[in-house]
Amino acid sequence: MAEEAASGSYSALGVESIGARLGNLVAMKERLGSDIGSWRAREVGDGNLNLVFIVESPVGGVVVKQALPYVRLVGDSWPLPLKRSFFEYHALIRQAERDPGRVPGVFHFDVEQALIVQEYLTPHIILRRSLIAGTRHPHLAGDLGRFCARTLFRGSDLSMKAADRKADLALFADNVALCDITENLVFTDPYFAAPLNRHTAPQLDALVARLRADVDLKVEAQHLKTAFTTRAETLLHGDLHTGSVMVTGEDTRVIDPEFAVYGPMGFDVGMLLANFWMACFAQSGHEEGEGARDAYRAWILDVVHEIWSTFAQTFTHLWRTERTGMLYPAALYEDQGHAMAAEQALHHRLQAIWTDALGFAGVEIHRRILGLAHIAEFETIADPAQRAAAEAKALVFGRHLVVNRARIPGLAAIRSLAERLEGENIA
Amino acid sequence: MAEEAASGSYSALGVESIGARLGNLVAMKERLGSDIGSWRAREVGDGNLNLVFIVESPVGGVVVKQALPYVRLVGDSWPLPLKRSFFEYHALIRQAERDPGRVPGVFHFDVEQALIVQEYLTPHIILRRSLIAGTRHPHLAGDLGRFCARTLFRGSDLSMKAADRKADLALFADNVALCDITENLVFTDPYFAAPLNRHTAPQLDALVARLRADVDLKVEAQHLKTAFTTRAETLLHGDLHTGSVMVTGEDTRVIDPEFAVYGPMGFDVGMLLANFWMACFAQSGHEEGEGARDAYRAWILDVVHEIWSTFAQTFTHLWRTERTGMLYPAALYEDQGHAMAAEQALHHRLQAIWTDALGFAGVEIHRRILGLAHIAEFETIADPAQRAAAEAKALVFGRHLVVNRARIPGLAAIRSLAERLEGENIA
Repeated sequence: MAEEAASGSYSALGVESIGARLGNLVAMKERLGSDIGSWRAREVGDGNLNLVFIVESPVGGVVVKQALPYVRLVGDSWPLPLKRSFFEYHALIRQAERDPGRVPGVFHFDVEQALIVQEYLTPHIILRRSLIAGTRHPHLAGDLGRFCARTLFRGSDLSMKAADRKADLALFADNVALCDITENLVFTDPYFAAPLNRHTAPQLDALVARLRADVDLKVEAQHLKTAFTTRAETLLHGDLHTGSVMVTGEDTRVIDPEFAVYGPMGFDVGMLLANFWMACFAQSGHEEGEGARDAYRAWILDVVHEIWSTFAQTFTHLWRTERTGMLYPAALYEDQGHAMAAEQALHHRLQAIWTDALGFAGVEIHRRILGLAHIAEFETIADPAQRAAAEAKALVFGRHLVVNRARIPGLAAIRSLAERLEGENIA
Repeated sequence: MAEEAASGSYSALGVESIGARLGNLVAMKERLGSDIGSWRAREVGDGNLNLVFIVESPVGGVVVKQALPYVRLVGDSWPLPLKRSFFEYHALIRQAERDPGRVPGVFHFDVEQALIVQEYLTPHIILRRSLIAGTRHPHLAGDLGRFCARTLFRGSDLSMKAADRKADLALFADNVALCDITENLVFTDPYFAAPLNRHTAPQLDALVARLRADVDLKVEAQHLKTAFTTRAETLLHGDLHTGSVMVTGEDTRVIDPEFAVYGPMGFDVGMLLANFWMACFAQSGHEEGEGARDAYRAWILDVVHEIWSTFAQTFTHLWRTERTGMLYPAALYEDQGHAMAAEQALHHRLQAIWTDALGFAGVEIHRRILGLAHIAEFETIADPAQRAAAEAKALVFGRHLVVNRARIPGLAAIRSLAERLEGENIA
């Protein structure tokens, strides 16, 4: 029983105990009313790590998210510190300041119980499900592009006071266990036969063997790991895939920043784009007849384009109007009549973020097909041959991004590559 | 009186009070004997920040280094946290582990009094003085190359456990005030007319104006600042110039790591090389007749070459034998029969360190001629025209390194440039 998985005074919640355990919290009573008997809780966590409860009453609802002392996906053989809830809380309140309205509201945080009472997002669904269903969201790309630009710019030395940025760097540097998951499961394990790996076999065996013998790929993946673990440019969400986004027709929310850490700006952007590219390659497994999802594929590729263009536009705007940190100061550029120096530096930074993002996108694609944590877009394709065909396209696409990231001429070229791969038989 | 500059229970030492204040310390008595009346202290601090006492008795000697709550070079109008002593202590004990025998032994640390009792190095002198005097040290380059390779490799994710590296990152991230000095005085102030700047005027005015209008230079200097402040690759010494090295004919010691912080590997290497290049350009102000120091100039350039080659050889050896951290793991390379992947990655990393080092060297040269903290090699040239002529060569040399650092073919090309500039009249 999860209820008995106590560690110190920590005790995991259950649907039956929520009223008794949290009934006195103002944050709960304000939204659910004081009649605890009318509260109904259900556990809905479908992620890899935590308990997530929706608690509703006749007058309202909240979400209670609680960390478990182990990796839910694997079981209690893989312990994981409860403190990740602390990092999630601190990331959420910073993201809410930096891009208001884009993350769920936080009503209560209990560090000892590792739980956050937060806004119940309804009728939102997880974006990944929506991409499988073939649903479009007109505001999605703009919202995500702005979220990335605002949180990444405003959490960096481009914007913050140096002492505040360094204090946050130190605070999040303790998020060791979740970084370890990224460091190993994303950047290393997929590239050799690590024990927790799995892939669609035997269909992908030959391609997987080829990738794991690809020295250039394995070197570049570790360069990207080096970038992730050493380049403390900004506060990352750290796990910004399409399972960490909730949507309606009108609204976009970014959830679950427990992997938050200081890292390179391109990481969030690249992981996000990777998940759209994978959703695109997976459409063949979900279309009602051949070509039925062609227009939807094109929409996904449009979303990728719009995320990046919105990101670049918003980042440019912030660069010109909010560059108050110690880097590239106006005192050195604009105030000396050298506004063009600021523009020159901006282009260099954007180009560097772009290059990084492509590399991170490539490894994200690989780890979702070769590693421990797979994604529903591929997993729900029942026919292994069909699944492998889609995965193979994504794998070679990812390899191209990782190895050639500094020499790819732009999104048009990538789109053209994705479209060409769609018509080919790779596996 | 410095003695009265108390802050909390902190109180600055004076030559008269050392016996009374420190007479009970075992670390002192063990080396000086218990007869406090026989102790003789003198204050010898010639740096920019601290009090440094040599305390001797008939039976031995120690150095007592104490932080002042302000910048000694500027005065109490510029407060500076005493905690820098804490960072110096923690850096010293790590460096002693990583390259035994190359830093002074630490006998006692008092966090509240911000003082370190350490080994009295004698007959050592500051390397900078030796370079002005024209003295050669046969072991110097090898010692410094190994020191850089060992401390930089062993303080990184190439070697350390990830959790330990992240804990150290967080610990040193609080060294905010000293980082601020580097961030502003090295990377920003030299490139515009900041209040604390000075240069040899009017002789250098035209060249300084040209450099401060050089958009490419000003952009690249801020890219280097970004690298310094975001790329937490390893524990840096942080202030590794030739005033932080003490030498005899046989021995080399690296002192004063109070600027220690996690940063890019190329920073220490670049700052060190820069100070040799400046010493080379300054020889014309110290030679007994034209050409009298030609052989010594050649020796300095040999030292630069040997520092880098020793660094690269030692780093390569450590890469092949001590790569126990999470980056570029043997599990992924050697254990899979892909030893060449490890070599490929090594070459990429060395090339990146090299490129960074050249850039950091360039800004170090600029700030020592244009900024607040100048160096004795140039300052002791009495004739301003002669001083300016030497400084001008160094300035254009530094500009070349900063802007072209990624496209310089190697040390032979740099040496050829330095030799060519020596024969020209720049100012």
